[in-house]
Amino acid sequence: MSNKMWGGRFSERPDEIMEEINVSIDVDRHLYAQDIAASKAHAAMLATQGIITASDAKNIGKGLDTILSEIGKGGFTFKRALEDIHMNVESRLSELIGPAAGRLHTARSRNDQVATDFRLYVRDVIDETDAALAAFQQALVARALEHAGTVMPGFTHLQTAQPVTFGHHLLAYVEMAARDRGRFQDARKRLNESPLGAAALAGTSFPIDRHATAKALLFDRPMANSLDAVSDRDFVLETLSAASICAVHMSRFAEEIVIWTSPLVGLIRLSDKFTTGSSIMPQKRNPDAAELVRAKTGRVIGALNGLLIVMKGLPLAYQKDMQEDKQGAMEGFAALSLAIRAMTGMVRDLAPDEAKMKAAAGEGYATATDLADWLVRTLKMPFREAHHVTGRIVAKAAEGGVALHELPLKEMQAIEPRITKDVLGVLSVESSVKSRTSFGGTAPKNVASQAKSWAKRLEKERKLG
Amino acid sequence: MSNKMWGGRFSERPDEIMEEINVSIDVDRHLYAQDIAASKAHAAMLATQGIITASDAKNIGKGLDTILSEIGKGGFTFKRALEDIHMNVESRLSELIGPAAGRLHTARSRNDQVATDFRLYVRDVIDETDAALAAFQQALVARALEHAGTVMPGFTHLQTAQPVTFGHHLLAYVEMAARDRGRFQDARKRLNESPLGAAALAGTSFPIDRHATAKALLFDRPMANSLDAVSDRDFVLETLSAASICAVHMSRFAEEIVIWTSPLVGLIRLSDKFTTGSSIMPQKRNPDAAELVRAKTGRVIGALNGLLIVMKGLPLAYQKDMQEDKQGAMEGFAALSLAIRAMTGMVRDLAPDEAKMKAAAGEGYATATDLADWLVRTLKMPFREAHHVTGRIVAKAAEGGVALHELPLKEMQAIEPRITKDVLGVLSVESSVKSRTSFGGTAPKNVASQAKSWAKRLEKERKLG
Amino acid sequence: MSNKMWGGRFSERPDEIMEEINVSIDVDRHLYAQDIAASKAHAAMLATQGIITASDAKNIGKGLDTILSEIGKGGFTFKRALEDIHMNVESRLSELIGPAAGRLHTARSRNDQVATDFRLYVRDVIDETDAALAAFQQALVARALEHAGTVMPGFTHLQTAQPVTFGHHLLAYVEMAARDRGRFQDARKRLNESPLGAAALAGTSFPIDRHATAKALLFDRPMANSLDAVSDRDFVLETLSAASICAVHMSRFAEEIVIWTSPLVGLIRLSDKFTTGSSIMPQKRNPDAAELVRAKTGRVIGALNGLLIVMKGLPLAYQKDMQEDKQGAMEGFAALSLAIRAMTGMVRDLAPDEAKMKAAAGEGYATATDLADWLVRTLKMPFREAHHVTGRIVAKAAEGGVALHELPLKEMQAIEPRITKDVLGVLSVESSVKSRTSFGGTAPKNVASQAKSWAKRLEKERKLG
Amino acid sequence: MSNKMWGGRFSERPDEIMEEINVSIDVDRHLYAQDIAASKAHAAMLATQGIITASDAKNIGKGLDTILSEIGKGGFTFKRALEDIHMNVESRLSELIGPAAGRLHTARSRNDQVATDFRLYVRDVIDETDAALAAFQQALVARALEHAGTVMPGFTHLQTAQPVTFGHHLLAYVEMAARDRGRFQDARKRLNESPLGAAALAGTSFPIDRHATAKALLFDRPMANSLDAVSDRDFVLETLSAASICAVHMSRFAEEIVIWTSPLVGLIRLSDKFTTGSSIMPQKRNPDAAELVRAKTGRVIGALNGLLIVMKGLPLAYQKDMQEDKQGAMEGFAALSLAIRAMTGMVRDLAPDEAKMKAAAGEGYATATDLADWLVRTLKMPFREAHHVTGRIVAKAAEGGVALHELPLKEMQAIEPRITKDVLGVLSVESSVKSRTSFGGTAPKNVASQAKSWAKRLEKERKLG
Repeated sequence: MSNKMWGGRFSERPDEIMEEINVSIDVDRHLYAQDIAASKAHAAMLATQGIITASDAKNIGKGLDTILSEIGKGGFTFKRALEDIHMNVESRLSELIGPAAGRLHTARSRNDQVATDFRLYVRDVIDETDAALAAFQQALVARALEHAGTVMPGFTHLQTAQPVTFGHHLLAYVEMAARDRGRFQDARKRLNESPLGAAALAGTSFPIDRHATAKALLFDRPMANSLDAVSDRDFVLETLSAASICAVHMSRFAEEIVIWTSPLVGLIRLSDKFTTGSSIMPQKRNPDAAELVRAKTGRVIGALNGLLIVMKGLPLAYQKDMQEDKQGAMEGFAALSLAIRAMTGMVRDLAPDEAKMKAAAGEGYATATDLADWLVRTLKMPFREAHHVTGRIVAKAAEGGVALHELPLKEMQAIEPRITKDVLGVLSVESSVKSRTSFGGTAPKNVASQAKSWAKRLEKERKLG
Repeated sequence: MSNKMWGGRFSERPDEIMEEINVSIDVDRHLYAQDIAASKAHAAMLATQGIITASDAKNIGKGLDTILSEIGKGGFTFKRALEDIHMNVESRLSELIGPAAGRLHTARSRNDQVATDFRLYVRDVIDETDAALAAFQQALVARALEHAGTVMPGFTHLQTAQPVTFGHHLLAYVEMAARDRGRFQDARKRLNESPLGAAALAGTSFPIDRHATAKALLFDRPMANSLDAVSDRDFVLETLSAASICAVHMSRFAEEIVIWTSPLVGLIRLSDKFTTGSSIMPQKRNPDAAELVRAKTGRVIGALNGLLIVMKGLPLAYQKDMQEDKQGAMEGFAALSLAIRAMTGMVRDLAPDEAKMKAAAGEGYATATDLADWLVRTLKMPFREAHHVTGRIVAKAAEGGVALHELPLKEMQAIEPRITKDVLGVLSVESSVKSRTSFGGTAPKNVASQAKSWAKRLEKERKLG
Repeated sequence: MSNKMWGGRFSERPDEIMEEINVSIDVDRHLYAQDIAASKAHAAMLATQGIITASDAKNIGKGLDTILSEIGKGGFTFKRALEDIHMNVESRLSELIGPAAGRLHTARSRNDQVATDFRLYVRDVIDETDAALAAFQQALVARALEHAGTVMPGFTHLQTAQPVTFGHHLLAYVEMAARDRGRFQDARKRLNESPLGAAALAGTSFPIDRHATAKALLFDRPMANSLDAVSDRDFVLETLSAASICAVHMSRFAEEIVIWTSPLVGLIRLSDKFTTGSSIMPQKRNPDAAELVRAKTGRVIGALNGLLIVMKGLPLAYQKDMQEDKQGAMEGFAALSLAIRAMTGMVRDLAPDEAKMKAAAGEGYATATDLADWLVRTLKMPFREAHHVTGRIVAKAAEGGVALHELPLKEMQAIEPRITKDVLGVLSVESSVKSRTSFGGTAPKNVASQAKSWAKRLEKERKLG
Repeated sequence: MSNKMWGGRFSERPDEIMEEINVSIDVDRHLYAQDIAASKAHAAMLATQGIITASDAKNIGKGLDTILSEIGKGGFTFKRALEDIHMNVESRLSELIGPAAGRLHTARSRNDQVATDFRLYVRDVIDETDAALAAFQQALVARALEHAGTVMPGFTHLQTAQPVTFGHHLLAYVEMAARDRGRFQDARKRLNESPLGAAALAGTSFPIDRHATAKALLFDRPMANSLDAVSDRDFVLETLSAASICAVHMSRFAEEIVIWTSPLVGLIRLSDKFTTGSSIMPQKRNPDAAELVRAKTGRVIGALNGLLIVMKGLPLAYQKDMQEDKQGAMEGFAALSLAIRAMTGMVRDLAPDEAKMKAAAGEGYATATDLADWLVRTLKMPFREAHHVTGRIVAKAAEGGVALHELPLKEMQAIEPRITKDVLGVLSVESSVKSRTSFGGTAPKNVASQAKSWAKRLEKERKLG
């Protein structure tokens, strides 16, 4: 027996391996809710336009509702022989309501149908990701407020650079997440056009109303070119791009958690909730979740890369290659979702060791820049010269194994005689962070104010959303 | 002798391989204009804020103008020993104006400086890409208007699917380019914040005015978090993502040109301007430019992937790894620029073989869907049943080696007795395309109207831009 | 309740999201056979070395056999609470044989255990891929023998270049597959060392015999450095690299099938077994399998890229990131397996249209090189000059719309007076392919001989294997 | 004027953008030595076979030597109008020796010529990489011998796991480099077949001797299928795969150096030769080279990914896309070369802080496994139970803030009464590493013996090589 949906002209069954490579129901079954919603909108429109009867439309609608409920309850048997979600649904509809089911596919094709379904799916993914990122931001802002004044070492090259506050560091991730959310929103905006009614590729001669189905499915408008409508997978690529950049952010934070919880560093501690033990080493407290977040980046970027490869060099319009748009993308989105939620949990869970942070902030001559700046400000020295003078003072201190503020004043004066004891006022880590009041700088009052402003903004959003 | 800019504390020269891996001037020299513009804005602000004297600022400004002109004229010797563009410029400035040059680096760091430079550079890339895409769209729209009614085969799976018009096909790429431009604009919007004044990572204690430098450099605002400002490379990643998706579009069109100009297909012809010969086969007319456009996709995606890998798992703030953000990105952007411009040239150059297009449109039973739709419309047959009936009619015609409209009516009636000779009205390729009047469909009047509307929109943009 | 295997020191349950991100049983359950085999080898060795009693070892072995059979029959309940395959097996073993189960994990760790399991798994994948590629080669060789003399157009730039034989074209893929097999074999050789006994990372103080477990698991030897043994994932990366290159080969062939079955080209035809229809266009015969093969390349390369990203920048030894080595790789291997098998099916199925092939081979002045070579050979003209002369003759023929052998001799002589009618002997496609007798050239007798030699080689291999 | 080499049939100049995208001389000029070597071998063979005269061959040979010397001395002007290296060389040859130059291109094509050139180039890259990796191994082995007994913390999850020796850790990289070298050698073996004489794609009717040219160019044999010979880029892909895996190894070591030199960790120190300062923070000692090595991974993987994308879905034989095989690959190889050499320099340069290493090795209850193993060995406790008991003892020690060996014996006995003071013998880091004598384990005598064996092997290789 040949295929039910397109087999009219075929006299032979597909080869076994052909069936194996062709079947997509294991993946596209996840689109069932979207597929049914789109079919309902299509049927209603067909009736309004007089293409099918109101009675057929009603039966189709009821049948589809039944199927939605059957699948939702787990009582639906997906058949691989029916290839994909569209044919599984239509076949069941036919069982439920008879020949009228055959009228549903008027003026559409699986090409525009699957494009519609997957757009709706990705739109949902975007909305869920946005919510997860908002929760991540809220967690960060809460901790940033708490630690607006907690001094820690700021690193460049993983070397102690200058003291910063822990709150300031956390707010950097709030900014990144804000850009991530912006990217997802922009992707959503571009995605939110309806391909339904493009039919196979050329549009249709039936008097359909694409604006009506677009509206019913909460799309902003129908896509303007039917060939483009069925050929386009930009919406997946763009969303995966946003996901990849977001995953990179998560991986950066994860790397910091892995380093900071290392016993040699010990700047923060995760509770038992976010650490695991070892099957052989009883003392271990492994930051597994952070490591896995870091690793998930590979999955997300791999999914983006894979789909870019699939789409590269494909002629218009629909090519079967495009069936490969779903599995990788779905896994990539799932990986990112896990990463964001795990990171949010760790932000809430982590406990900074404030004493160690402060001590570490002062190590490695972290206030050397403050000394150089003092020379510029007080002695009107050009910065480049001040930098050299400070370099020599640091070298002297390092030689003696003492911190900058422990170096006897006269040792400093041996290098630059105009230095006075006033300089000591800028060499502590607290004075250092307090002095950094430039816009966006790490001064605790800046940080507190930024955190509050973010808290307000997120709260407002939450109320609206 | 140790390094001039940061060598105060160092007693030994770098290892040779260290210098080789570390030097970036071969790449970042391309940022010279941006680097000088940012330094000028910074110096002017330092003077306004009373951090340096007006006279120093004036000398710095004049010196920088001299350097800009020297580099522009090719009369500047970049020194690898000076590592990067920042130090090459500052060192020359010092030769030109003496110690005042050393005041320029007050309240900034190479970390915020390079972030500023590269943002300005990528912003320029975006603007140039937008202009190139607009020209691509203009070329497409002009040809689409010309060919709004030229019938060609519409393909799915590279099989003849339904007749479409060549103009309709070209307009699909106008839509893609519009989304591309949207992505670049969104990236620009997110990019357009100034990192300048973030200094090393923590901000500064000098009373700088970051809003002023942001404004001077045409940024929308300063970035809100100094740590984020120096750690972020989202702007490159996002622009490369947009570039990758755009490159995929170009590769799809390129693939079509390669196939369509193949002598076995012959739907279009490129002139000598866009073909090359062979060193061995005298008869060849190779569509080299199209092939190279298709290949450039690899470079662009490779650049995106490479930078995602560089950034993955990097702790905040600046890590030297981030120096690897430029070369790949610059090459990727250059590859895309070539691809868009070559494609635009080919769009202008290509000559469709209209007779062959029309003949091909009719092959392969391309109007079978029209027959099925007729059965639905006229006989009120459910589409699924109409599809099967049509399948059997196609099989019958294929058996006899005739086209659908050549199949004797009674052969059709043997399969479905209710078919009348009226059916012949829908079986020609012209009537098929004419009937596809649904929104976004391929009907010539739709296509002409879409093309005109695009022409108007692009013209308006051109006048504004 | 805390985790059974490592929870001694833990007082709090893991967070829900921690469990969700951490659990790996859904993926590593596919390693059950390998895990049990490795445990059996380990237990036997522990007994031989006197580390556990013979009776404990016997019970462990019997318990593990029971579990293997339970899983094989589908009667085993995997528990997500037990995290991974190792703990699921050990936990069940404990139910079956009591406390002796707790002796199995002596002198090993999950770190060396999972490395062993996954090496065994990838080794199996390599062996299956090798067999699939051998079948692909056999199919190609059979068709090549059949078509050693079937003339078709040889393409460069998808332009007709010179006539070749279809058999010659097919044998090119036999060569590619041979290199693929070589790469998989080399990967297998490097993979085939045992990490078992490296324990957590440092080796163990128990007097284990790693050579014995290596031998029992058919490894060539134990890995030489315990840190490397648990840190290394080269074996997956190298196998995925070989898979990616192989997938690219499959995609090239797939692209050719898609183009050649396009009705405008029509060089070959696939049967109903390897084509599908359309839900809307009743006439379609889509080469879906070929398109999906082409697309699978994205999955395989995406998997390679993803794992390279995971491993990049990971310190030694085991990091939890490495748990992400499995899912992507397994999916990538499965995608390649499908691609090779589908391609093999299509090679067997495809029917070349010999008449069309021959006609197409002669189009586009495909024997122009033969003419140029004749000028060199007969008139002792330098090739570069002969190439120009031929170019002018081709231009003349193209002007008149005739083939080279149809161009009146005097027209040729007007360009080069020394040309005689003997030249006609080299202008047919048959004489062209027959003349290409250089080693590796397309002459039918070369092709037949190459095909036979491959057939013999594969048959010999088959008998040995 | 149209193109000199293939322009016979062309009446119009290429478009400006066509020239810009098409020109490859900026990249393939790096192949000049290979191109000339291949041309010399080809000309000599043509003469031997009587296809050109001995006198022509002699002149060609001399002319090519002159060109080689001109390019070597920098006195050669590459012309973009001549497109590529082949035409630049042939054109100059023509100036030097007149029309005989036109005989060189007999029985070959740019298709087999460039394939030959690039194979020779990549073969050189492989040989240089092998030498660089051997030097890397030598550096590692020397330091490993020196530090066979230096105890440091072994990490998993970046948590202190068990004590290992620094020499053991270094030897892990010797193993990785050995696999890398194996991969490059296997790639070389597969690469080392000659495409020369495949001509455009079909072979040639001239009586050439491909075995002779293969031998002259030190290839193992000619490639067996002319279509494959010009279509194949496996040799680049496989070498880039090996390079990517090798780059990942370098990145892992680089990451460790970045972490270990961080002042909070401080396990090792790099000298001024491998650190840089900051333009703003005078105290900084940045491990720039290690960071750049880590980043170079992105370039190498990006190049692999880019070329896989270029090759995906390309029909046979030569497509112009394949011109994009060189630039990315060359840059990728250069990046890896830098990375290996920088890493070798750092291995020689780095100074471990042995006291800190030892102290750190003992932190975090790193000998807990030794305690568990003691319970198994001495009390015959099943390992799983011993692990739990140890976990409770560790928890007790952690509560009291003491190390394991500092915990009063009776506290241990409160948990497990059978523990005796003998247990103290296994709790020091020295006794721990000494006990790990299993094959491949970290015991100093193992490490010393492994290092010596490697030293001998590398020395032997060096003498042979």
